[in-house]
Amino acid sequence: MALDFADRLVLRARRLGHPLCVGLDPHLDRIPPLFRHGTMRAGDPETARAVGAFCSTVLDRVAEHCVAIKPQSAFFEQLGAAGLSELEALVRTAREREVPVILDAKRGDIGSTADAYARAYLAEDAPLRADALTVNPYLGGDCLQPFIDAAAAHAGGVFVLVRTSNPGAGDLQDLETQGGTPVYERVAAWLSASASKLVARETRWSSLGVVVGATWPEQARRLRELLPESPFLVPGYGAQGASAADALAGFVRGPDGVLEGGVVNTSRGLIFAPGSDTDDAETWERAIDAALDRAITDLAEAARS
Amino acid sequence: MALDFADRLVLRARRLGHPLCVGLDPHLDRIPPLFRHGTMRAGDPETARAVGAFCSTVLDRVAEHCVAIKPQSAFFEQLGAAGLSELEALVRTAREREVPVILDAKRGDIGSTADAYARAYLAEDAPLRADALTVNPYLGGDCLQPFIDAAAAHAGGVFVLVRTSNPGAGDLQDLETQGGTPVYERVAAWLSASASKLVARETRWSSLGVVVGATWPEQARRLRELLPESPFLVPGYGAQGASAADALAGFVRGPDGVLEGGVVNTSRGLIFAPGSDTDDAETWERAIDAALDRAITDLAEAARS
Repeated sequence: MALDFADRLVLRARRLGHPLCVGLDPHLDRIPPLFRHGTMRAGDPETARAVGAFCSTVLDRVAEHCVAIKPQSAFFEQLGAAGLSELEALVRTAREREVPVILDAKRGDIGSTADAYARAYLAEDAPLRADALTVNPYLGGDCLQPFIDAAAAHAGGVFVLVRTSNPGAGDLQDLETQGGTPVYERVAAWLSASASKLVARETRWSSLGVVVGATWPEQARRLRELLPESPFLVPGYGAQGASAADALAGFVRGPDGVLEGGVVNTSRGLIFAPGSDTDDAETWERAIDAALDRAITDLAEAARS
Repeated sequence: MALDFADRLVLRARRLGHPLCVGLDPHLDRIPPLFRHGTMRAGDPETARAVGAFCSTVLDRVAEHCVAIKPQSAFFEQLGAAGLSELEALVRTAREREVPVILDAKRGDIGSTADAYARAYLAEDAPLRADALTVNPYLGGDCLQPFIDAAAAHAGGVFVLVRTSNPGAGDLQDLETQGGTPVYERVAAWLSASASKLVARETRWSSLGVVVGATWPEQARRLRELLPESPFLVPGYGAQGASAADALAGFVRGPDGVLEGGVVNTSRGLIFAPGSDTDDAETWERAIDAALDRAITDLAEAARS
């Protein structure tokens, strides 16, 4: 019987000794010359293949060393159906290599439509089956339920957006509701009962996680109190300016004394690492490997300190 | 020069005399026998083709009579890349016939990713170029801006989720913020300045619209005060229980005295109309035509009364 998502994620993080998740956000205009094909434009199948080759080569370099990968659906969707084929192949390859895949698609819709999204990305027979999916809570609790149910049925996971990493995150998420509680804490409060129902057998972490930006360590600590069992998916480390210590603000000591409780994502800082904008394969590999080592060392040290 | 999205939408509604939008939500288990192929499952390209044939045949019947179509992305995404190819073909056909396409995808993400989504669905060279896209405001104003900019650049439109039609819509959207203003009104208030910037030349309606469920007529009236220029995309009419009068609660009298100010969507009540679950083509056509006539008559009467 397959392990629950939270167990797959947390046990792998314990084994590796750090929480690094590699975000695959293939911005068309930043694909290195080594992989580019012509002018790189949305409607061109060769462009989609070039993006696929770039991502799968990054995957080759990081697969053994990262806790999870997080493909960003938008960058594949902009390439149309050809881009989705590449994303399907990438996700299949990662899962064959037992690298957990968190599909960053931020979906959310009313009941029967949310069901279709949940089936699209979490069901066993889905063409694009991920291990976990990011979802948006704006539509309310009844719209999150199909994702939570699908996670439970298919040993998958869900990460609900709670406090995002962008500068304008507070426009809505920080609005103070009656009694002074910000909107994002109200969202966390609704999730707490569902999170407890999705607790994994071995690690006792929940397969219902939340997205909490590394750029807001105080909020992360508060959310950890509200959601003691939910893994955090932490964007904003690296390129968006947050330190490893900030990124781990909501993590807690695991059985070996190492901080655990989610994954910390880096995208641009790794896949478009300094020195990787080259047409030489060895130079590119060295640049990616160096950025990977730096991120792992930085996070592993912070997790042990 | 192409008309702005709001002009295309509102002028067409004026010409037709009603605001009907047909939602294409091809639930796999409800596709009529006439179009079904085998067991209809997600990973099967024949299933995707059957769904594509069903939707394009519905489009044939409604194209001359509805203001817009609203394909629901989830039902195509669950079929994988093959489903996306069918959606691309459907959207292309509709646009060739000058039927405005509102892609219901409820996207939302941080800056550079929102840019990629906006390019994916609103740019001239996008494989799946729609006339307008639904987007989610949870991430804040900076995350809506790329969609608004893309709409302005490409004569497209955006519909921001404000007050949705589902039973749990109020969980987050109705939370009272300081002073008693609910969250959804705060969202509407941020949109107001951007809506004014996207006002179309001819009708003076804005290409920045909002989603306001037909199930909440009082909220619709309040939102019309806050956003006098924004077309409403109104789900919840028909299958979700709202009457034509409820659906038009936020509409205002146009130049001919007919209520205008957006579109009212019906999906299941039309595409899975009573009597359409058949393998006989003529019976199916009659069932769809009858449901279409009923919805148009109902909405046109309410719009004139």
